[in-house]
Amino acid sequence: MSEDNHQIVLAEIPQGKLAPEHFKSAVAARPTPGDGEVLLKVLYVSLDAANRAWMQGATYRSALTAGDVMAGGSLAEVVESRSPALAPGDLVFADTGWQTWAVAPARRLAKLPRMEPLTHLLSVYGVAGLTAYFGLLECGKPRPGETVVVSAAAGAVGSIVGQIAKIKGCRTVGIAGGAAKWALLTDELGFDAAVDYKAGDTRRALRAACPDGIDVYFDNVGGDIFEACLFNMANHGRIACCGAVSQYDGAAPRAGPRGVPGLIVTKRLVLTGFIVSDFDDKRQAALADLKSWVESGQLRVREDVLEGLESLPGALVGLLAGENIGKRMVKVA
Amino acid sequence: MSEDNHQIVLAEIPQGKLAPEHFKSAVAARPTPGDGEVLLKVLYVSLDAANRAWMQGATYRSALTAGDVMAGGSLAEVVESRSPALAPGDLVFADTGWQTWAVAPARRLAKLPRMEPLTHLLSVYGVAGLTAYFGLLECGKPRPGETVVVSAAAGAVGSIVGQIAKIKGCRTVGIAGGAAKWALLTDELGFDAAVDYKAGDTRRALRAACPDGIDVYFDNVGGDIFEACLFNMANHGRIACCGAVSQYDGAAPRAGPRGVPGLIVTKRLVLTGFIVSDFDDKRQAALADLKSWVESGQLRVREDVLEGLESLPGALVGLLAGENIGKRMVKVA
Repeated sequence: MSEDNHQIVLAEIPQGKLAPEHFKSAVAARPTPGDGEVLLKVLYVSLDAANRAWMQGATYRSALTAGDVMAGGSLAEVVESRSPALAPGDLVFADTGWQTWAVAPARRLAKLPRMEPLTHLLSVYGVAGLTAYFGLLECGKPRPGETVVVSAAAGAVGSIVGQIAKIKGCRTVGIAGGAAKWALLTDELGFDAAVDYKAGDTRRALRAACPDGIDVYFDNVGGDIFEACLFNMANHGRIACCGAVSQYDGAAPRAGPRGVPGLIVTKRLVLTGFIVSDFDDKRQAALADLKSWVESGQLRVREDVLEGLESLPGALVGLLAGENIGKRMVKVA
Repeated sequence: MSEDNHQIVLAEIPQGKLAPEHFKSAVAARPTPGDGEVLLKVLYVSLDAANRAWMQGATYRSALTAGDVMAGGSLAEVVESRSPALAPGDLVFADTGWQTWAVAPARRLAKLPRMEPLTHLLSVYGVAGLTAYFGLLECGKPRPGETVVVSAAAGAVGSIVGQIAKIKGCRTVGIAGGAAKWALLTDELGFDAAVDYKAGDTRRALRAACPDGIDVYFDNVGGDIFEACLFNMANHGRIACCGAVSQYDGAAPRAGPRGVPGLIVTKRLVLTGFIVSDFDDKRQAALADLKSWVESGQLRVREDVLEGLESLPGALVGLLAGENIGKRMVKVA
């Protein structure tokens, strides 16, 4: 097996929009696992909007700095183990970064089941699916008959949120950009309505699509769309705050949405921020639900798989521009 | 008894800051109660920041329009009753508006106990005390040892929030404007620390006063202070959104606080908007708690009582400028 570790390094922290030029390729020696560690071969790298947020400063993880191997989560295979917890051939999800080989402490990793297709371990059974599941059900708390709106609805998380809401008996409205996504949502994924935020006045379009107001808004984007939803919330509505992709790809944070906190008070809203690891104790039950829905055909999984380590910078730039449909990942090996 | 009903009418909806000129006096005939109604003599009118919000548009009540008798809640005495539910001499809290006499349906009113001083029915045992109680305990959910911050801390609600938080074993930090309020908070009301938002960089002062971050923020003001607190929240912190007085006294809503929703996500915050009537079913238990704390001396009640119907416009303008300490009201009869 190759001794070389091919890497993508963050050459420079972007001050404005992220571009492929902010990255560079590097080659290092294949790392060697120490006691308690495993050597991992990276199979698929997950692309996530949060990758960009990590360049802005400390979030729920420490900030990236120039010269770092770009951070990112991957589906990886154990090739060599110096821990009794894992054996060669085991699959894990790990924060490997954008490289072909990585070393990690075994105690931080959990063995994943082999399945076909393997990519589902990064989409519906990975962070995306669990984020959709916990954000919607634990933070949004939808009740049958309620109206659920999700932004970035054609994305990895949003496409699953809308379908779970439908399974739970809700009326579902997706916000996405462009006619192709609009058609995907209503024709393929079973949304009751879709709002194209590139087609004009989102606040007005939401009012038309949600005449009784929004009971649950699953926010992936922040910014103007967050504001448009806030003004359309029904009394006692809930907003699950999952991410703010509209805010990541630029310099300093802009002004926040109008109506905060005034509309939160008058409409008696609850806004809940979360990250998926907050719900680790409920993971197995969530995975069982997701599996049953996928197997019954109620939940359709969309994936967007690119090829080759070198395609990672462009894949992230494109994700931030909203070009993917479903879970985007890059097959590395 | 006088047949005249002296009134303060909202002459004009303010476009910018509210001023006494936006009101005018009027005299009408004393109203006559119909079947099921009572005639009320207004004793004390409550002054609330929400009075100003009602001029901006529909909130949890319909908007005020020019020519309306100014809306407001009062402690009033039943003088004539055409309902078996209430008798002359009974005290009630009612949405009488700014006038000396009012008529209201008895079914909307609840008889209050006579007590000394009567003013406590508008402060600690009224909307202010219950708002503090429910907002802090039901929305903020403080745990002993946590850091609780409240804005407008010398006001009717804030002065009670801080004291309840202290009773519950929290570290309490009040935000208020000016040295006099600062001294009141730390010397008289038992706050552990105070931040004077007029003295400079509030975000930095909060960081110094709350080195481990803010676990619970009770927001009465919105705007820049909300933003300063948001940036100082601890992970898994809670924000009780009670009002946004900084946003009421002007024209169109400004941009919202930065960090929304980004910091809500990364810090895993919960923001809960509420109004006091959401908790009507828990009112008796709350009043019993408040009474026991007042009687034991753990909870000190501050009131700011002005005299005469004609002083109402100036009293509201001054309240919006933060000139009151404790619950502001006007004795009308």
